[in-house]
Amino acid sequence: MAQGNLYILSAPSGAGKSSLISALLDKEQGKNRMVSVSHTTRQPRPGEVDGVHYHFVSVAEFETLIEQGAFLEYAKVFGGNYYGTSLPAIEKNLAQGIDVFLDIDWQGARQIREKVRSVKSIFILPPSLSELERRLIGRGQDSAEVIADRMAKAKAEISHYDEYDYVIINDNFEQALVDLQSILRAEKLTLGYQKQENQRLIHELLAK
Amino acid sequence: MAQGNLYILSAPSGAGKSSLISALLDKEQGKNRMVSVSHTTRQPRPGEVDGVHYHFVSVAEFETLIEQGAFLEYAKVFGGNYYGTSLPAIEKNLAQGIDVFLDIDWQGARQIREKVRSVKSIFILPPSLSELERRLIGRGQDSAEVIADRMAKAKAEISHYDEYDYVIINDNFEQALVDLQSILRAEKLTLGYQKQENQRLIHELLAK
Repeated sequence: MAQGNLYILSAPSGAGKSSLISALLDKEQGKNRMVSVSHTTRQPRPGEVDGVHYHFVSVAEFETLIEQGAFLEYAKVFGGNYYGTSLPAIEKNLAQGIDVFLDIDWQGARQIREKVRSVKSIFILPPSLSELERRLIGRGQDSAEVIADRMAKAKAEISHYDEYDYVIINDNFEQALVDLQSILRAEKLTLGYQKQENQRLIHELLAK
Repeated sequence: MAQGNLYILSAPSGAGKSSLISALLDKEQGKNRMVSVSHTTRQPRPGEVDGVHYHFVSVAEFETLIEQGAFLEYAKVFGGNYYGTSLPAIEKNLAQGIDVFLDIDWQGARQIREKVRSVKSIFILPPSLSELERRLIGRGQDSAEVIADRMAKAKAEISHYDEYDYVIINDNFEQALVDLQSILRAEKLTLGYQKQENQRLIHELLAK
């Protein structure tokens, strides 16, 4: 059996990344896929569950994990909260043939690429700036100032789209989902993956 | 608009390559895809149409085209017949955004890779040797000797599977078709393709 693939998924807020990931995991249940659960020092939002949405830890705990080298990547974002991705958990899942998705920003993506050469990264773009703004407003829970701040942050994130292997434009949600599935399937059809996954068949076919 | 992609499709006889290509073009009508029509000096088989299945030419005509440098690849196969792929026709189609498929063997594939760096190649494997033999017998139009010869040739072709970018195992036809479509779609989502295809959107999103 081949190892699972490690994917980075990045997008500006409002591009629909979380919905795409949810739909992908719903649709493909039992297909050996999971989202890596990050560590964070921020407070849980309503409905968020420790160990499911994040591992919620204190700043002291997070800094101990940094010292132990447990993070594949971590960052201190504005507001002062830490976010990080634990390496041991990911490796365990990959070894079991599970594809692991990292839901991180461009800075985290850069750190991962340096450490895991085989990682494939996917950037999700909105179909336009006006649609992006509409989606950010559509959530209806933030002030104009917060939305303007998110738009600025979104554009900053978008400016790094060309560091990624794949780019999906989320204009039509169903098409974007098909696109994401196509990438995942195609990566399973690469020579390197197939050589591992179908060793026995290939051995039989090549037998004299 | 981005250029079309150039694909090589190779497989041993009996792996189902022709049926897959037919199904792909049927299903995706209007989606800007075509199979390159090769030149050959062999005689047309019943039902084959000049200019559709092959450009049927004489040995003298073929050798003149060789001298003119018109072929991206060509080969003289056992039996003494020439097969070749005309470069000008392919370039014209790619420039119009049409994906072009080259239905060729490993030797032709090698020649193409040397000349067209951006080509992507796909190898189709049967699910087992016994199934391959069953399929070759299933055609019911050849002697045991011819079938044994084809099996030997198939195994020789299979031995080059690891020169290809992608490997599809044609166990279940519908799955193999989905696999092929996934590769084609994923290649349209690569950074390089998207940068060309969506220049205007990206320019808008990156505007200050």
